[in-house]
Parts: sequence; structure tokens; C-alpha cells
Amino acid sequence: MLPFARVTIIGLGLIGSSLARAIRADMPTVRVTGHDADAGVRDIARRIDLCDDITDTAGASVTDADLVILCVPVRAMGAVAAEIADDLPAEAIVSDVGSCKADVLAQLSAALPGRSIIPAHPVAGTENSGPEAGFATLFKGRWSIVTPPADADPAAVERVAELWRRVGADVEVMDPAHHDLVLAVTSHLPHLIAYTIVGTASDLEDVTQSEVIKYSAGGFRDFTRIAASDPTMWRDVFLANKDAVLEMLQRFSEDLSALQRAIRWNDGDALFSLFTRTRDIRRSIIEQGQDDAKPDFGRSH
Amino acid sequence: MLPFARVTIIGLGLIGSSLARAIRADMPTVRVTGHDADAGVRDIARRIDLCDDITDTAGASVTDADLVILCVPVRAMGAVAAEIADDLPAEAIVSDVGSCKADVLAQLSAALPGRSIIPAHPVAGTENSGPEAGFATLFKGRWSIVTPPADADPAAVERVAELWRRVGADVEVMDPAHHDLVLAVTSHLPHLIAYTIVGTASDLEDVTQSEVIKYSAGGFRDFTRIAASDPTMWRDVFLANKDAVLEMLQRFSEDLSALQRAIRWNDGDALFSLFTRTRDIRRSIIEQGQDDAKPDFGRSH
Repeated sequence: MLPFARVTIIGLGLIGSSLARAIRADMPTVRVTGHDADAGVRDIARRIDLCDDITDTAGASVTDADLVILCVPVRAMGAVAAEIADDLPAEAIVSDVGSCKADVLAQLSAALPGRSIIPAHPVAGTENSGPEAGFATLFKGRWSIVTPPADADPAAVERVAELWRRVGADVEVMDPAHHDLVLAVTSHLPHLIAYTIVGTASDLEDVTQSEVIKYSAGGFRDFTRIAASDPTMWRDVFLANKDAVLEMLQRFSEDLSALQRAIRWNDGDALFSLFTRTRDIRRSIIEQGQDDAKPDFGRSH
Repeated sequence: MLPFARVTIIGLGLIGSSLARAIRADMPTVRVTGHDADAGVRDIARRIDLCDDITDTAGASVTDADLVILCVPVRAMGAVAAEIADDLPAEAIVSDVGSCKADVLAQLSAALPGRSIIPAHPVAGTENSGPEAGFATLFKGRWSIVTPPADADPAAVERVAELWRRVGADVEVMDPAHHDLVLAVTSHLPHLIAYTIVGTASDLEDVTQSEVIKYSAGGFRDFTRIAASDPTMWRDVFLANKDAVLEMLQRFSEDLSALQRAIRWNDGDALFSLFTRTRDIRRSIIEQGQDDAKPDFGRSH
């Protein structure tokens, strides 16, 4: 028994368009309606036949939905929710795919009082953006974290969880605040660090940008991938999850200072001890199927 | 005309064993002799038939060599050079593959006065270590940087450069100090940052290590790859290239503080502006063939 019959996806970028493709591939009888605020994106979505229907307004997209999933930058969630409030069927569940959950839950609850709001976050993506970057298998073997408010209807939570399972994800239910702390370290801090180091490297005077690019295979290129992610999405994430990000950043800076001091004082043992410890984490990630076991991410050599 | 007829490789880890394989694949008439200080590594090298000959001492490996390449951790270079000094033929060129060049050049010059020393650094690798991790195509399409001393014989420089070209690398000749600055930003700083963030993530109290591993696909897993690199090699790199690493680390920390401040004060424009700029670097790296164009490094989805 399918958890939903008519799903509306608002925001047809990498995640929204991947979800549309996944639903059509894995639940072909579900009717998928799409909307994007950008007319150019709507044109592309129509041309590539992404959904059963693409509407020109957000309101029109939700009129007969039993699930509405907002796939827009996290600080745009409240505005989009307000836009659909009048057209949203009483029984419809509203969910999203944003990377911060407490802030999004607050926005959606304020814009849609009394409605069934079940936020979620599929921990999946690539560095590419837009409706043509999506693909149906993006969520397979990845985790999707469902973060219902304390008073959520358990049946509604289960239906949203089941949708994610149907497109191949494993589901975990988590408190929104805890989600934000976990993701601050597993996703937000890494992106912030990657953006910073790529910025640092492109601002040097003694080393040219052409040298940075030429010799990037020494490690730098790994960071450029996530530093190529969507700027609007990430600006919003850092501002919406400010407290957790600043907390993790503080810890990271302290650890970096300790390492800096070890280098300055030639403390090889401290370096060796950390570098040995970090190997195990990689091994566990591969064992749990969360990364490719092939060397160098399986890049071609 | 081959640049060398008898090449000795001392240190049969990822780089040394890849070079042995590459020379045998691309210059099959060259005689390759190998040595490793670790008897277990020598056994493996013999079993997998890595070289034409594997010797039990470093001295025995160089007696008839016209090129000796040291593929050991950078702070071990001087000791290994001293070990081969008495057996090294007068005309032999000594090179290496270390990731810092000024310090290595100083070590080799001190241990082998009056000899032809032409250091080099192939900017290539994977996170794996040991003789079985190597492969013949590791250097194809990568850069190898040759960093001769100011008074080097140009013919010797050209012969070392030609060896690297023959195994598929592009060659650049560079001043050792400039090399160390360039690699501090394109390789050493990224490794240091990756080791730090993986350490930070595994030390949290509110977020479990199991959560860090489960949700690593949000970005964190990218950092775990280079943080799984050889601990001895990297300890040595940071200590041997201390000044350049500390300089780059200082710049990175300043940039990170600026970003931290932008988040604290909700300066979305500053974030957006940096995040847009960093996208271009990724594009250039892909255009120049220094990374896979496939999304997510071509990981399977």
C-alpha cells in the first residue's frame, strides 16, 4: 500500500528533481506535480517530462496533494509555506528536504498553523544543481532523517518515512535539535571548511591560481567538489543552523590550534597519534556502505 | 633513447611500488632493483614479482644503478642516503619522490656531498599504503615537479624529467622553496585540515561516532579519504615543511575567522559571494583534467 497517491514537489533543483524521478521510478502510480519559482526551471522540467504536471504557481501545485514536499533553500521555506497555505487541502502532510530542521520546523509551523508538518532530510546529494542534475537513484542506500515535532501524528510520521524507504533510503527518526547538531559536524562544518580553504588558496600572492589548479591532485581537489555546491542553499544553511555551526567551528578551531602547536614544537608523536586514529573512521564508513571502497573514491587513473 | 638503464627504488610503499610497476610497464628493458627496510615488505615485493631484484640491504641495491630513487618518508631521506653513500656508483643520479623539497635537498646534499642530486615530486597518490596498493598508471596525466639545486647539471635534470614523462607524467621544473609553498596549499594544508576535522568529529560527546559515520554522506566522508593516508609519511611532511605549512595555516585560520564572523552577524552576502567564487576553481580543475568531471567524483549511486 503506497503511503501517498498525489505528491507535490516545490523546488525542482538537484534534490527535488531527484525525488520526482525516484517517485516515478519506484512508485509509478503516484501522481507527481511540480512547481519551481523560476520560470526557466519550469520550462526545463516540462521539456524533460520530470513530473505529471508542472504548475505556474505554488498554490496551484498543491490543490489536490496528499503530500507536499518543499525542496527550496532553507530560509525560503516559510515564504513558500505561506504561499500555499490557502490552497493546501486540510488532510495534506507538508514535509521538506532541508539540511537544518529546527529552524525549518519553526518556519513551517508559523506559516501553516494546525497543519500536519513532518520535516525530513535525505542525507544525499552531489555538487551539481538544477533539474537536470537530479537522478532517480540518489537516495538509494543513503539515510533520510525524519524530524517530526513532539506532537506529530505517528501515522503521518510513518507515511513520510515509508515514502523515503520506497525510494531506497534508510530512515531514522530524530529530534530536530539533535539532527542539527549531527549535521553541523557531518555536513555543515565540512562544507564551511571546504569553502574556506578553496577561498584561501585562490587569494595567495606567492602561489598563482594556475599552480593551485595544476597541483590540486595533492589533496586540494577533494575540497573543491563540495565547495562547488549551490551557494544559495549553503548560505541559508549556515545562517539557519548558526548556533550548532558556530559551536562545531569553535571545537574545530581549538583542535586545529593544538595541531598547529604540535607542528611548531616538532611534536611528531602527537601528529602520528591523531593520524593513526583518523584511519579507523574511514574504514567504518566504508564498512557501513557510506562510501566507495575503491581507492581515490574510484576516480579513473 | 631511455634516460636510464638500471633504476633502484628504495622504499616500496604506494609510490615506490607504483613507480616500479610503471617503469616495467612503460620501459620494459630497464632493470629495476628494489629495497625496503621492512623485511615483510620485501617478502611481499618478491612474492608479487615487483622488481627484477629485491635486495636485503640498501647498499646492495645501488651498486650498479644509474638512477636511485628514494621513496621513503621525507625525514628518513638523509639516513637512507647515508646508508647507500659507500656503494653508490660515481655517475649515479640520486632522486626522490618526497612531498617537501628544500628539506630533502638539504638532507641528501649533506649525506652525499659532490653527488648528482635531482629531487622530484610526483603529485599523485591514493589514501592506501604499501607495496600492494601501487599500480602502474598512478602517474598518468599527473604532474611531476623536478626541483634541482641551483648548480645541477642540466643533462641530469633532463634525464630525471624524461623518466617521469615516460611513465605518463607532465613535468615542471621548479625552485625547491617555491615547490614547498605551492604544495603547502595544494596538499599539506588540505591533509592537515582533513585530519583535524576527522579528529574533531570523533571527539564529540553530544554526537556519537556511530552518527558521524552514518550521516557522513553529507560531506564529511570526503575528508576521511585523505585523513586515511599514511601517518608516518604525513607526520614527516608537516615537520619537514613546517614554515610553509604554518604560514598557510595562519592564512586559512584568518579566512575561517572572517567566515565565522559573517555567520555570527548574519552577513549572507559575504557567504554568498565566497561560495560563488569557489565554484570556478572546481570548473578549472576539471577542465585541466586534474579531476573527474563525473558528479561526486564518479562514486557509484
